[in-house]
Amino acid sequence: MKTLFSLTLILLLCACETPESKTPKSENMKGKFAIAIHGGAGNLVKMKLTPEEEESYKQALDTALEAGSRILANGGTSVEAVEAAITSLEDCPLFNAGKGAVFTHDGHNDLDAAIMNGENLECGAVAGVRHIKNPITLARKVMEKSEFILLQSQGAEEFAKEHGIAWVDTSYFFTQHRWEQLQEAIEDDKTELDHSEKKKASVDKPREEKFGTVGCVALDVHGNIAAGTSTGGLTNKRYGRIGDSPLIGSGTYADNSTCAVSCTGKGEDFMRLNVAHDIASMMRYAQVDLQSACDSVVMKKLKAIKGRGGCIAIDSQGHIAMPFTTTGMFRGSIDVNGAKKIALYEDK
Amino acid sequence: MKTLFSLTLILLLCACETPESKTPKSENMKGKFAIAIHGGAGNLVKMKLTPEEEESYKQALDTALEAGSRILANGGTSVEAVEAAITSLEDCPLFNAGKGAVFTHDGHNDLDAAIMNGENLECGAVAGVRHIKNPITLARKVMEKSEFILLQSQGAEEFAKEHGIAWVDTSYFFTQHRWEQLQEAIEDDKTELDHSEKKKASVDKPREEKFGTVGCVALDVHGNIAAGTSTGGLTNKRYGRIGDSPLIGSGTYADNSTCAVSCTGKGEDFMRLNVAHDIASMMRYAQVDLQSACDSVVMKKLKAIKGRGGCIAIDSQGHIAMPFTTTGMFRGSIDVNGAKKIALYEDK
Repeated sequence: MKTLFSLTLILLLCACETPESKTPKSENMKGKFAIAIHGGAGNLVKMKLTPEEEESYKQALDTALEAGSRILANGGTSVEAVEAAITSLEDCPLFNAGKGAVFTHDGHNDLDAAIMNGENLECGAVAGVRHIKNPITLARKVMEKSEFILLQSQGAEEFAKEHGIAWVDTSYFFTQHRWEQLQEAIEDDKTELDHSEKKKASVDKPREEKFGTVGCVALDVHGNIAAGTSTGGLTNKRYGRIGDSPLIGSGTYADNSTCAVSCTGKGEDFMRLNVAHDIASMMRYAQVDLQSACDSVVMKKLKAIKGRGGCIAIDSQGHIAMPFTTTGMFRGSIDVNGAKKIALYEDK
Repeated sequence: MKTLFSLTLILLLCACETPESKTPKSENMKGKFAIAIHGGAGNLVKMKLTPEEEESYKQALDTALEAGSRILANGGTSVEAVEAAITSLEDCPLFNAGKGAVFTHDGHNDLDAAIMNGENLECGAVAGVRHIKNPITLARKVMEKSEFILLQSQGAEEFAKEHGIAWVDTSYFFTQHRWEQLQEAIEDDKTELDHSEKKKASVDKPREEKFGTVGCVALDVHGNIAAGTSTGGLTNKRYGRIGDSPLIGSGTYADNSTCAVSCTGKGEDFMRLNVAHDIASMMRYAQVDLQSACDSVVMKKLKAIKGRGGCIAIDSQGHIAMPFTTTGMFRGSIDVNGAKKIALYEDK
């Protein structure tokens, strides 16, 4: 038995040491694609959104999902689909990214985004940009045109200007409800995911129920996966705080040989555990499937450190997992068979 | 055999799913400590440093090693030792961190640093600071006093001011040889690790042989490990580029249940693979020892993507690994038995 155990162990370790590589597209996956998106996670209280508000979120998620899906159906790449879906969510004021970004303590909108191509581990990211209409598009440009991966603040905007990325006045990002959320957060001296429901939990319909980092993962018909994330970060954030979204391995990761992941939640929890990369590592080294890795990393390890949030993940076979430790995560997916799902709260 | 294999697999997977936790100090480790430092890696050409120059580097490494070691011998924490050793290296103009930091394209010194405590996964990091004498001390302050993990630029400096961190004029970071390296890099239109030897390879004693991100990992007598890294990044870097050093999981990681790691090299390569976290993940999920994980991640996976650099790593038993893909890495260590090693080039 001892010999058998040793032999098994050796076999497993050998398997574990396989370096990252392009996974060849298997025959039965030919022409198949899949996509998942999220619009943030949080401790949502169901009745606090009216049916009309719920419908608005679902429609916005559906629009983004279709934008990405159309590209995939036409043979486009997972990177293109991820950018298209996230751009759609960034342009929607409902989510905490792009147009709907929250305010920093100083009254700015500091935007972060990252994108990663699982085919070749190429990636690009930006942090703390204030004039970029679609940070995910800038992140993609960094991935494709820069020798660097992560650019920040004015430097990132200088790069954006040189590469003709859509530029907007800071007033573009002003929305009245985000501004009011900031005032409340300052009053409470709190930094929150979008803004939590704590303060007005007893009030019928508080504004603060809208959470919102956005993200997308996709598998294209060429067998390549990609991940992207975009966010305004935490309401009332200070000191040039950067969260997990633009950090490769923390909030965003993609590798054809394991999975593509986009996270949402309290960034610091995801950074501490390197959640996105940890899911990929567990698949690689412990040889478990996507759902098991997500369950273990998000539902056990993240929960164990009281981490709030969740993620969407996809592998090169098109399996999709969408775990979260909160009571809700705005999410949508279209699987390899074309089945669409859009949901806001926990699955029953 | 199939049953046995399944049983073994289940046992292994169960072991793999153990969440991060404090590793209890084993009896035979009581009172033991160990430490390792690096002063950067690069494709060093041996004869290009005079014996006197080699001696200067070795002495600087020794001074830093002793600064950390003294704290550990007196029962101090691994976090304290890491900060002390790195502070010593930051204050030395020979290394690309603190006083000796390289210049950005725009003629600034943008400093990055991170520190992580393996006991509780707490961590702190700063990027792009210009007035902080010891960025590692600021990173530690972020870890201990901020709800955030990663702060950047002016925001990070505002936090520093509020917490009484030593502030210096930007002129403190001016060194003639770094300035000349920038002019050469601009002329060559290159960003380099410190600055490579390419340009003057045929000249007898080019200045550009000094590489230099600095880092430290340590095990204290309480059984806790920690890691820290500090750098000026790449000569001629632009656009607010952030490298791997301040990114938890890429250039710096620590977890008592696996290892503490500090990396040095071309940051983007380390970010793409999440090198520090990947070594820890391989130990956790593939159940291999520290040296094997380092060999696999640095000497195989990093090499496979032509990654230049190396790392220092320690586990809670005091094992030390110092792999690098370049021809040299300035490094030093004191193991659990008190044996000291200081080296610049490859081991023969």
